[in-house]
Amino acid sequence: MKTIEWTNGKVRIIDQTKLPHKLVFVTISTLQQMVKAIKTMQIRGAPAIGVAAAFGMVLGAADLRKTAKKLLDSRPTAVNLKWAVERMQNIANAGKGFSPSQLKELLLKEALLMAEEDVLTNKKMGWYGAKVVKRGMRILTVCNAGALATVDYGTALGVIRAAHEQGKKIHVYSAETRPRLQGGKLTTWELQRSRIPFTMITDNMIGHFMQKGEIDLVVTGADRIARNGDSANKIGTYAAAVLAKAHGIPFYIAAPVSTIDFNIKTGKQIVIEERSPEEVLQVGKERIAPQGTKVKNPAFDVTPAKYIKGIITEKGIFKPGNLEMLGT
Amino acid sequence: MKTIEWTNGKVRIIDQTKLPHKLVFVTISTLQQMVKAIKTMQIRGAPAIGVAAAFGMVLGAADLRKTAKKLLDSRPTAVNLKWAVERMQNIANAGKGFSPSQLKELLLKEALLMAEEDVLTNKKMGWYGAKVVKRGMRILTVCNAGALATVDYGTALGVIRAAHEQGKKIHVYSAETRPRLQGGKLTTWELQRSRIPFTMITDNMIGHFMQKGEIDLVVTGADRIARNGDSANKIGTYAAAVLAKAHGIPFYIAAPVSTIDFNIKTGKQIVIEERSPEEVLQVGKERIAPQGTKVKNPAFDVTPAKYIKGIITEKGIFKPGNLEMLGT
Repeated sequence: MKTIEWTNGKVRIIDQTKLPHKLVFVTISTLQQMVKAIKTMQIRGAPAIGVAAAFGMVLGAADLRKTAKKLLDSRPTAVNLKWAVERMQNIANAGKGFSPSQLKELLLKEALLMAEEDVLTNKKMGWYGAKVVKRGMRILTVCNAGALATVDYGTALGVIRAAHEQGKKIHVYSAETRPRLQGGKLTTWELQRSRIPFTMITDNMIGHFMQKGEIDLVVTGADRIARNGDSANKIGTYAAAVLAKAHGIPFYIAAPVSTIDFNIKTGKQIVIEERSPEEVLQVGKERIAPQGTKVKNPAFDVTPAKYIKGIITEKGIFKPGNLEMLGT
Repeated sequence: MKTIEWTNGKVRIIDQTKLPHKLVFVTISTLQQMVKAIKTMQIRGAPAIGVAAAFGMVLGAADLRKTAKKLLDSRPTAVNLKWAVERMQNIANAGKGFSPSQLKELLLKEALLMAEEDVLTNKKMGWYGAKVVKRGMRILTVCNAGALATVDYGTALGVIRAAHEQGKKIHVYSAETRPRLQGGKLTTWELQRSRIPFTMITDNMIGHFMQKGEIDLVVTGADRIARNGDSANKIGTYAAAVLAKAHGIPFYIAAPVSTIDFNIKTGKQIVIEERSPEEVLQVGKERIAPQGTKVKNPAFDVTPAKYIKGIITEKGIFKPGNLEMLGT
């Protein structure tokens, strides 16, 4: 089962806002619908929204400049979106002189290739990443960097999945990841389906379980990685990395090379998306704070390279300082 | 308005499970009701449940041994409960030979005194604590160590209140404090009523805002402090302290001397209450994780003394290593 798939001339996605309670598929047939699905996080996760943007370019092939702009504006932090749009633009340029239907066909082929590549990329990442997982390790992950955040298999959860498939008897701690609870709703759902043993904890328990010696390894995804290895990922990742360092626990990022933004030198240049206050003020129908409460809602934070032991990619595991090797 | 008050031969408390949406008072006339109110956290906060236990001893004066046991079993971590029960037992011993009604009268006087002392204690604590608050500081607190956690005024929030009353133009960051969201529901409610400017954040944003230089000081309450200064407080406090250290931000505990357990040498001896999984799995009526999800729910963690710059008490501010001075 894929998070995103091209079927009968349309895009079918899992509506991630309905999980874990209901598995609902949504069919997307216009660019506008795709932009909305990305903004409302029906589809989310850096690699997944990269592929979503590629299909978005197919749906909006009639005016690629306008389409590209709309997609790029939908969410600012994950660089995969930009990467996908640019790759599609390059293909369009190569197809200059094609009829509209030929061009659309060309774009669709590229988008389908990107979707296929994504799965393969994750499996390679899993294979490399599993090398750092020792038998019996208890692994913390935050947010969801699983099959749902990609086309299938996952990045950080792909590493976990590979280690599990190798019979390493791992146990996962899934931090619930407020405000949108992707760790509590999506990662738990995936782990349960894959029969990988796990415990869900609230985000503020991470320090405590590290202190008690119950976490051996941290692996998370990333939404954008700067050339120096500074990595933007879901809010809370930075705190988990600092806590890991304080407890001598190795902290890894798992992300495809497409998540590395070779145009920026450090994490300081990464734009952090600020999302709606409602996400913080409300859990489902349950209102938390009193009326008039002011909140902040940065969706991501930046973990400086010095906290990252390695970045697991489909081309191997790299020290954050060695990413330049990939950028040629 | 007091969190807990003796009125017409009964105890009146604010039902904290209904805040911030409704201000509901509950009248407690039996020991059993008091034990239930403590267990379900209708009343909570170390100093408040100390006073609740004192009133509980009055309500259960007919069989003090049994009453003491029931109260002590209601919640294990906060030592104020034990402190209050023992203080009441000492009074009962002093009143040997009294008639049941005389004994009850004696116990009531002591409980009322403890409730009054609590307010005074908090105000003194606020006065001492405000000295470490500089003009314009942005102060992080977790959970609720406010008027609601005491009889009135608060411990950590008492310090914040005092600094605000002194016109120091402070701004508070209130971490929502999963699973029960005391920071999001109770601290916000108190700050709003007192017109103290604040921003609510999710627990996993603490590191990010420290990294951005937006937090200057951390003050929290405590539920039990060991002789060496190790302090148990609401889950997440330890992580906040480690993060504060990593960012060079001073971290203070504000708690009355009654929170210091001179019988234990270090925090390792503190029993951490494990509460119901439902608190983690559910926010109000909103279910988070899929059926069958295993969770952990330690209600507290222990912050080692080395992370604590000072412990603010009603007798002054002490370095964690100097608490012995108070234990004589």
